[in-house]
Amino acid sequence: MTSLSLEGRYHPRDNLLVCSFDKNTTIAGVTTRSSVVGAPIPFARKVIERGKVRALIVNAGNANTCTGKQGEQDLINITNALAHKLSSKNDIISEKEIVMASTGVIGEFLNTNALIDSFNNLHTDSNHKWLSAATAIATTDTFPKAVFSSLKIKEEKFSICGIAKGSGMIAPNMATMLAFIFTDISLPQKTLQEILNRVVEESFNAITVDGDTSTSDMVLLISTQKSSEPSSLEIKDFENKLSELCKSLAIQIVKDGEGVSKLIEVEIKNASSSEEAMTFAKSIADSPLVKTAIHGNDLNWGRIAMALGKTLIPINILDISINFGTFPIYKKGKMCDYNSEKCNQHIQESHVHISVDIAQGSADRTVYASDLTREYININASYRS
Amino acid sequence: MTSLSLEGRYHPRDNLLVCSFDKNTTIAGVTTRSSVVGAPIPFARKVIERGKVRALIVNAGNANTCTGKQGEQDLINITNALAHKLSSKNDIISEKEIVMASTGVIGEFLNTNALIDSFNNLHTDSNHKWLSAATAIATTDTFPKAVFSSLKIKEEKFSICGIAKGSGMIAPNMATMLAFIFTDISLPQKTLQEILNRVVEESFNAITVDGDTSTSDMVLLISTQKSSEPSSLEIKDFENKLSELCKSLAIQIVKDGEGVSKLIEVEIKNASSSEEAMTFAKSIADSPLVKTAIHGNDLNWGRIAMALGKTLIPINILDISINFGTFPIYKKGKMCDYNSEKCNQHIQESHVHISVDIAQGSADRTVYASDLTREYININASYRS
Repeated sequence: MTSLSLEGRYHPRDNLLVCSFDKNTTIAGVTTRSSVVGAPIPFARKVIERGKVRALIVNAGNANTCTGKQGEQDLINITNALAHKLSSKNDIISEKEIVMASTGVIGEFLNTNALIDSFNNLHTDSNHKWLSAATAIATTDTFPKAVFSSLKIKEEKFSICGIAKGSGMIAPNMATMLAFIFTDISLPQKTLQEILNRVVEESFNAITVDGDTSTSDMVLLISTQKSSEPSSLEIKDFENKLSELCKSLAIQIVKDGEGVSKLIEVEIKNASSSEEAMTFAKSIADSPLVKTAIHGNDLNWGRIAMALGKTLIPINILDISINFGTFPIYKKGKMCDYNSEKCNQHIQESHVHISVDIAQGSADRTVYASDLTREYININASYRS
Repeated sequence: MTSLSLEGRYHPRDNLLVCSFDKNTTIAGVTTRSSVVGAPIPFARKVIERGKVRALIVNAGNANTCTGKQGEQDLINITNALAHKLSSKNDIISEKEIVMASTGVIGEFLNTNALIDSFNNLHTDSNHKWLSAATAIATTDTFPKAVFSSLKIKEEKFSICGIAKGSGMIAPNMATMLAFIFTDISLPQKTLQEILNRVVEESFNAITVDGDTSTSDMVLLISTQKSSEPSSLEIKDFENKLSELCKSLAIQIVKDGEGVSKLIEVEIKNASSSEEAMTFAKSIADSPLVKTAIHGNDLNWGRIAMALGKTLIPINILDISINFGTFPIYKKGKMCDYNSEKCNQHIQESHVHISVDIAQGSADRTVYASDLTREYININASYRS
């Protein structure tokens, strides 16, 4: 694992990360669903499909997106050069086992030659400097994001380490959400992928800063397969730990959203389906009127009712209840005393919890969001990005 | 037509409008599609369905939304009292021919008694003070919105007058979009409704301030049926004039959006379908990153590419072209010189035009939007609303 500093955006701090992995390391991953994707995305999807990985390279400052054929060729040249650099006589590494992730401004070409030249400075760092790695993949993040967890498999202790960058799409350079999770668990790639899909749905897919979806989002789960075979109980434990770790990284991303002053937790209870619960939660979490009200310490539950309605999902507002924290504001068609001191205390906290009971079914979902502040406008209107 | 001042929000300026109409006046209308609607909406829908109207009453400051059974009863009491007040021995008016529209804060009860008492101050004003009427229905609007148009039917001149209030959902009191259009044309209610549906799609349904949909939106087209029967050419002329008038009112609403500094016109060309064109246009127009970039005079076309992608509609970014004003920024996969002086001049104007050619079909749509500014946050985070 090496982090380096390249000329360009974010120089002189480290802005390039290279990780290499032993043979038999598997990769599972999810990538952005956007229909406009960066050059790295289709390449990463192919590596994930093949399931084997030997190296990960991440540059911060340039997303290599909307760069056409040249962007693809740059990526091929870089991964070829890295494969060559990392190969030895007895261990030939193919560029097909290398994932590249790029984050930063859209519509500029990579400085490919400088990037390839920097491979001369790669070194083996067995100390796994996770915080340096988390810093090297950052763009406008204000703190590096890393989470560690451990689990026992057949009495032996193994770790799960995750690093992430980004804050939705709010960074001035169109910075994107990237997360890389490393572990040693011995599980087939297919099982890892299934676990990752479930975990991402409740963590990275459950955060929103401004509702803008990146062209380069990527979450990878990389396992060296060094543990002994886990029992089904140990696999369940792994999934729980991974889920906690991903939620923690996801919440760190929201908390580092530019201009953010509050974390808003939107919990939908008793919706007809999980999909509808998510639609309600995101409609509230993405509403500029809800976000500004909470920023202004205003218990404006009418804006929450509006956000439920604008989904166009049929509901009966007379069945619904809305809580701020543990304090009821609106209960089955009846307005509560929302000027109470306790309510007003809760809205002023840095973590605001909104809970909405739809009373239609039994599906619950939670979304983590940021508020909307003057500082968001300052940052996104004031930089050329 | 009478405008009055009631105690409450916006007092002492006029905050109540009552218009009465002659027998045989027809009403066509469209109302919010939100699944959380104010008490007036289902009542208005019934009047529109019956097609006949004798009076319109509009109060500003209280949306009568999420007010349950009491809100409905208040509305019944008010329309009954108004019907009684406007009826004479020879001309009995039913409450079923009265439309009420309410706009303002959600979750408070109307002051029904004061409202009914004010009917004692109704007077006949044959001068049709349209600007007074437009002012009386306003909430946080900074100017009254009225547009006049005329057309000839069988050589006789008739008028179309439209008034509107609101600015999407950005007002601190959850102010809503209301528009009332009055004309004399003799056309069956069904024809008027069809014309209104077409016209609204390209005007009021093609504006966005913050993507938040109101619980009380309403556009009514009221005709006294006093003209002689129009020819098909004259009907076409009516539709064109109505379309221009609605577009003008709609754009006035965006320009008066709180905190707005620029009107952004987003034009999508050559999409596969009209629906897809609208989805692309709204995705760009509602993106906080696009809105802040334009506010900051930043020609950040990468954010436009991102907004196209986040619709998840399959597109090939290499086929697409993006213009700012008449200046190409990105042309079929090739980046243009977007630092050119002409481009930079255009982005600094108060009306910015973004045009995106999808190159997939032949459907075109245009959306009018506002930028996103610090002032928006100030207004929506600083008021109890």
